[in-house]
Amino acid sequence: MTNFTGEVRIVGAGLLGTSIGLALTKQGIDVAIASKSPKSVDIAISYGAGRAVREDDSPKLIVVCVPPQLTAQIVAEELIAFPDAIVTDVASVKAGILEELERLAAPTDRYVGSHPMAGRERGGAIAGRADLFVGRPWVITPNSKSSPAGIKVVAELAQALEASVITVSPKDHDRAVALVSHVPQLVSSLLAARLVDANQADVNLAGQGLRDTTRIAASDPELWVQILEANSAEVKRVLESLELDLGNVIDALANVDSEAGIAQLRKALRDGNAGVEKIPGKHGTKHSTYAQIIVMIDDQPGELARLLTEVGEIGINLEELKLEHSPSAQIGLVELYVVPSAESALIADLQERGWRIA
Amino acid sequence: MTNFTGEVRIVGAGLLGTSIGLALTKQGIDVAIASKSPKSVDIAISYGAGRAVREDDSPKLIVVCVPPQLTAQIVAEELIAFPDAIVTDVASVKAGILEELERLAAPTDRYVGSHPMAGRERGGAIAGRADLFVGRPWVITPNSKSSPAGIKVVAELAQALEASVITVSPKDHDRAVALVSHVPQLVSSLLAARLVDANQADVNLAGQGLRDTTRIAASDPELWVQILEANSAEVKRVLESLELDLGNVIDALANVDSEAGIAQLRKALRDGNAGVEKIPGKHGTKHSTYAQIIVMIDDQPGELARLLTEVGEIGINLEELKLEHSPSAQIGLVELYVVPSAESALIADLQERGWRIA
Repeated sequence: MTNFTGEVRIVGAGLLGTSIGLALTKQGIDVAIASKSPKSVDIAISYGAGRAVREDDSPKLIVVCVPPQLTAQIVAEELIAFPDAIVTDVASVKAGILEELERLAAPTDRYVGSHPMAGRERGGAIAGRADLFVGRPWVITPNSKSSPAGIKVVAELAQALEASVITVSPKDHDRAVALVSHVPQLVSSLLAARLVDANQADVNLAGQGLRDTTRIAASDPELWVQILEANSAEVKRVLESLELDLGNVIDALANVDSEAGIAQLRKALRDGNAGVEKIPGKHGTKHSTYAQIIVMIDDQPGELARLLTEVGEIGINLEELKLEHSPSAQIGLVELYVVPSAESALIADLQERGWRIA
Repeated sequence: MTNFTGEVRIVGAGLLGTSIGLALTKQGIDVAIASKSPKSVDIAISYGAGRAVREDDSPKLIVVCVPPQLTAQIVAEELIAFPDAIVTDVASVKAGILEELERLAAPTDRYVGSHPMAGRERGGAIAGRADLFVGRPWVITPNSKSSPAGIKVVAELAQALEASVITVSPKDHDRAVALVSHVPQLVSSLLAARLVDANQADVNLAGQGLRDTTRIAASDPELWVQILEANSAEVKRVLESLELDLGNVIDALANVDSEAGIAQLRKALRDGNAGVEKIPGKHGTKHSTYAQIIVMIDDQPGELARLLTEVGEIGINLEELKLEHSPSAQIGLVELYVVPSAESALIADLQERGWRIA
């Protein structure tokens, strides 16, 4: 499964550090876990994420898994303490860390930044799991001095964790995540914040659209303050464009009696269509790529299983599945997504078996 | 199932008109379908949504299911053509329609507005289905002159369609949907529009957060232009508050070196948390109310069914379920949501049966 060999040192025993340790230890790799929090180290070690550090440790690779604000300082310390090791980190913003390392005159030839795009709603060693990175993107951000050997070792780490490696520069990384992650976070938070002073009766009319657009507004503010601080320039740039567009839409709403106002609204909605079309992947393309079949089932144990058993018997692979409960009735709406060529046969077979297809 | 009796006339044979006709016809109610499009009427009738209109029709209730822009005019015509009938409509904005009816001096004592909060990504008679309204909110918006008998008939219609009736004034309705539906739509469109001019390589780093926040940006621009036009004042009011908050966040991003800037960012994120907490329902509360268990399954037919069969055998009801495919590996991640008291037993049972729990 992996070409990775040699000793690994993990600094920081939170969700990411513990998860990396669990996955590597499972593969027989020697992992030492260091942290300023002895309690987190205890939990991580008792979970099987590695062993305590020793005087004679000689890591080939060091993975710094501390909060974004502390990352550059700890990376610099590790580069000095272990002059033969490659050092990577897992912070979600990259250019500022590199700048700080350069300012500290750290030997950046042995530093290769990482951003594993995986997480959980819960943090801490206790939430760690060996499978956290499986199939997720792992962005590697070499700097201009990074040694080829160092880049190779970090890529091997990501591969050992079964992640998908993407390599970009720190600046390109930060520009991209501002757009696809940091701005969506802030926009979702701003949208949800509009509910705070609203009548509860108004909010009670919420449908799935509001739920989807505000889901990530439930994220941890303290972590996000650090991320936004570290990528403030790129995030600000995107938000300023958004602010212009928002101003145009507000103007258009004040001018819905004019053709220009209507045209402006139409443009905003069409541009939104065009933007969604650019998002890749199974989820991003489901509206156009997969056929949706809605099946109504009783809201009780075993019903969904019975449905999916029969879908399995019919021999059709589900590309996606979503279960929605009716807010009031004892009914579940199961959305099955299949390749379009399978749609009509599946509907016919399910109806023949007595399922209620919407 | 229903107290509803008497003849129903449906004007407009699109998704909503056809779906209402299908559901009522199933219950043995006499439904006449009128539309300016003979082709749509043909489809709706051949689907079983009702019959063609007759000279001697004498409807007790008329449901106007035409595009928002045409609704007031058609409602007024129907009120005059059928002086004994109650008339409702299904447009997603209500106050403007009432104003126009008053301007036309229509007999609004026999008019009671409706907004069934149900839809599909596809429109037209062909997409109609009898179950469209089951368990969904159906907002009834009586005006000051609406007769109690008229309100009762429209509520009985919604109940006959197995929808959940919510009664509010037209103005309250429009204020609420501006907040929970129309503004989220525009914000999602504006966010997705930022992707249009971006590098495809940047967009390729998109994760689930971007997908969730931009899902509804794929909606039909022509329908939404009409909705936004009809509710422009309320939508504008919410967007202006959002614009202020956005301006504050942009200022904060320019001042991340100051404590005030950081405090402002933290406030925006915390307000987002507080807003999400106000959203009711299973989906809105899943982060706090339900325990999440992630199971990894092979991405092949029958695996999910086998898992859910075993969950059914264990006897635990799923509150929600989500299937995610890894973008690269042949692995599916199944998120099971259960009541917290069931979590540890389910994990133990599933592990005993050999499932990989994350």
